[in-house]
Amino acid sequence: MVSKNQIKLITSLVQKKYRKQHELFFAEGTKVIEELLHSNFQLEHLYHTKPMFYEVSEIQKTLISDSDLKKISALTTANDCLAVFKIPQEKKIESNGLIIALDDIRDPGNLGTIIRLCDWFGISQIVCSEQTVDIYNPKVVQATMGSIARVTISYLDLESYLNDVKTEIFGTFMDGENIYKKHLPQEGIIVLGNEANGISKSIEEKITQKITIPRFGNLQLTESLNVATATAIVLSEFRR
Amino acid sequence: MVSKNQIKLITSLVQKKYRKQHELFFAEGTKVIEELLHSNFQLEHLYHTKPMFYEVSEIQKTLISDSDLKKISALTTANDCLAVFKIPQEKKIESNGLIIALDDIRDPGNLGTIIRLCDWFGISQIVCSEQTVDIYNPKVVQATMGSIARVTISYLDLESYLNDVKTEIFGTFMDGENIYKKHLPQEGIIVLGNEANGISKSIEEKITQKITIPRFGNLQLTESLNVATATAIVLSEFRR
Repeated sequence: MVSKNQIKLITSLVQKKYRKQHELFFAEGTKVIEELLHSNFQLEHLYHTKPMFYEVSEIQKTLISDSDLKKISALTTANDCLAVFKIPQEKKIESNGLIIALDDIRDPGNLGTIIRLCDWFGISQIVCSEQTVDIYNPKVVQATMGSIARVTISYLDLESYLNDVKTEIFGTFMDGENIYKKHLPQEGIIVLGNEANGISKSIEEKITQKITIPRFGNLQLTESLNVATATAIVLSEFRR
Repeated sequence: MVSKNQIKLITSLVQKKYRKQHELFFAEGTKVIEELLHSNFQLEHLYHTKPMFYEVSEIQKTLISDSDLKKISALTTANDCLAVFKIPQEKKIESNGLIIALDDIRDPGNLGTIIRLCDWFGISQIVCSEQTVDIYNPKVVQATMGSIARVTISYLDLESYLNDVKTEIFGTFMDGENIYKKHLPQEGIIVLGNEANGISKSIEEKITQKITIPRFGNLQLTESLNVATATAIVLSEFRR
């Protein structure tokens, strides 16, 4: 059984203000929950519809019905488990190696994919503008497939952060240098811009290295690459 | 005004069997519709809520209310226009250059992103297994952002198609050769596998070159890359 108050609390967590107030977020599905359990996230409570997660103590889990799970799930088709975790304190920003800076990424799926790519390419720090979608948004948590446990993500005033940076600051633009012909260091910041507007004017002024992914189509009509696929190509070039 | 019968017909087109029966599909939003109008797609009728598309004859368009658009739209938040187009005859398969082969891609967003990437990297032919999601699915059309007009997509029996191919057939696997260290030709087939199961056993037997995108994370826990981001990296490597 899930009580009415629990349903009310859990469903409220789709909204950032309630996540902040309660310092809680939730994840759905075995894969993501397992990754979070095996990292440093602190489990508050687990709801499951089948016997599973034998490593979790009985006191921290409740077997519920499919219809109860449906009441607390944020997915169109509910999975077989949902877990509520504590939002951890933000870690100190690491300042060496490659760092990804997000300038107002709004789509949860894009942020999730970018976190997963950072994890793949061994980038452990992401800094986000205050306007970037919250990492504890259920859709972001889902799209990361657990990578959220292995990448440090900080929200801050991006403009003043970049002011204090001493390494090169890279950004993708239509008129930058060909990324395939450029020497790319293993230290620096890579800025990724908003889905609709790209990198904002005030942030563009901080960029020291403009780069471009050349297009190969004949017709030259393809408007642009999606930010997540562009990130895949850029990170692959930096790491290859 | 949209008549009841028109609403019934248009909303039926979210299903493949009705698209096939009527040989029609629809697209929403100015950007995608404009791209389709400027290519060889034949417009059946355009519904719009604002004065726009001045190049389309009055006989082929109808100004409708927001609430009428909502009735025919497949989007959660309807755009300001929707256009019904004829499904063209499948073009003959081009057999030179790089060709992408899709082995049961099921997610419309992934197929749309892959089509957009092919357009960006100048790959004009995609061949799909019969089980791959239909390109005229409204969500695919939306995700292509108009690239659908510039890439030829054919559905066929992938196994027998690959039997007759004389070029190298590439596929990504966990245990393939490092893609960054391999000579990649400008002719050949690149096979991309299903989201959950990867490349199927029967297709794997046809692969002549197994490749891998190396991962750089320390923990080696990231399960895999999403098929669309993997495609971005692979195409970038082939073209760079």
